[in-house]
Amino acid sequence: MGVAELLAARGLAIPPSQVAPEGVRLTYRRLVRFGDVAYIAGHGPTFGDGWGSPLGKVGRDVTVEEAVGAAELTALNVLGTIERELGDLDAVACWLKVNGYVNAVDGFTEHARVVNGFSDLLLDLYGEERLAARTSVGVPHLPFDMPVEVDAVIALR
Amino acid sequence: MGVAELLAARGLAIPPSQVAPEGVRLTYRRLVRFGDVAYIAGHGPTFGDGWGSPLGKVGRDVTVEEAVGAAELTALNVLGTIERELGDLDAVACWLKVNGYVNAVDGFTEHARVVNGFSDLLLDLYGEERLAARTSVGVPHLPFDMPVEVDAVIALR
Amino acid sequence: MGVAELLAARGLAIPPSQVAPEGVRLTYRRLVRFGDVAYIAGHGPTFGDGWGSPLGKVGRDVTVEEAVGAAELTALNVLGTIERELGDLDAVACWLKVNGYVNAVDGFTEHARVVNGFSDLLLDLYGEERLAARTSVGVPHLPFDMPVEVDAVIALR
Repeated sequence: MGVAELLAARGLAIPPSQVAPEGVRLTYRRLVRFGDVAYIAGHGPTFGDGWGSPLGKVGRDVTVEEAVGAAELTALNVLGTIERELGDLDAVACWLKVNGYVNAVDGFTEHARVVNGFSDLLLDLYGEERLAARTSVGVPHLPFDMPVEVDAVIALR
Repeated sequence: MGVAELLAARGLAIPPSQVAPEGVRLTYRRLVRFGDVAYIAGHGPTFGDGWGSPLGKVGRDVTVEEAVGAAELTALNVLGTIERELGDLDAVACWLKVNGYVNAVDGFTEHARVVNGFSDLLLDLYGEERLAARTSVGVPHLPFDMPVEVDAVIALR
Repeated sequence: MGVAELLAARGLAIPPSQVAPEGVRLTYRRLVRFGDVAYIAGHGPTFGDGWGSPLGKVGRDVTVEEAVGAAELTALNVLGTIERELGDLDAVACWLKVNGYVNAVDGFTEHARVVNGFSDLLLDLYGEERLAARTSVGVPHLPFDMPVEVDAVIALR
């Protein structure tokens, strides 16, 4: 089974492509390919022109479970970017690096659990041998008050 | 027109090379080339041995407009590093990834607008087809109390 | 002298491999190699199944000197990952990029001094010509309340 079939078999679908909020310019590309590597911009829990997650700080406005869901939705948005830019979810030879930024209250320590919402989906779809190295850190605020933001570097077939 | 000419045509100039503050050692290189890729260290709004921007937190000590200017100055410093290390601003085949860190007050959400100060200049100089993927996040403090810090990965001709 | 000999000559040793805290899953690999580049996950001042550093915020729970030590221990853990995954500390042709995240109190500005604890060891072991580009930023919290976290990209022989 290809990755698209595995995704469908889990009952998951790629969300509509992110639309920047009214009046916001985003001066970057979502994916830049160079040779057999691609750099993927920071993504969040968008759903087209809206959000598929509560916004704000984890531990105050967003529960840890909601943040795990936001991280999974972020993964689906990254997959959407890969599908639209590269034509095929199976273009990923390996996830090289994932960086997860968790917007949370002071004293928060469960970053790994939140960012697992992103990585666990990729593990299911791509398997352990294509799993990325990862860095998870905390931040005090994120663009558009997102609870989580993730970017990645991937190797291409 | 080459990039240096485009820069001059906009009335902009490369600032003097950053000098570390008295007593500060910076154990890193500003640019490391490996094959046709180069990794660029975190840069800020320095101007030689001083600063070309107010310091501190955006939203308290630094206005958003000043932070946009600080991000543009940071871009000029990155261009200075490229020119000094690689000899030519046209050595950049493509901007692969830009990471922007915005030191701002709690509740800040305009990271994209600030980091556009960096990316908009690169867009003007290098064009849309050489534009990077980007991640912008918030931070609660930065080295030397800088309002913004940016690093990058570039592909070389 | 190889890097392992230089390390021993300094009286330093690779710590035991990190063991995730009870009940914590870490859905990532510590090092992912692709061609002649490897991406190294965020590491901290772990010592096997415990910690080799006080935890918490620099400037409140951890002194700057302790944070410098935590950053050096983090470097030793990264070296451990390289040795276990690649078989040899001399596999590193060049350190390409280091990212240091310092969990510190508001107003903190000595990030460079802390992350030098990581970089100074690499400088001693690998020399100036293999030194990385670097980004150091501040964060308000880190996984497991670590005072410092560092990741890296390396080129391989």
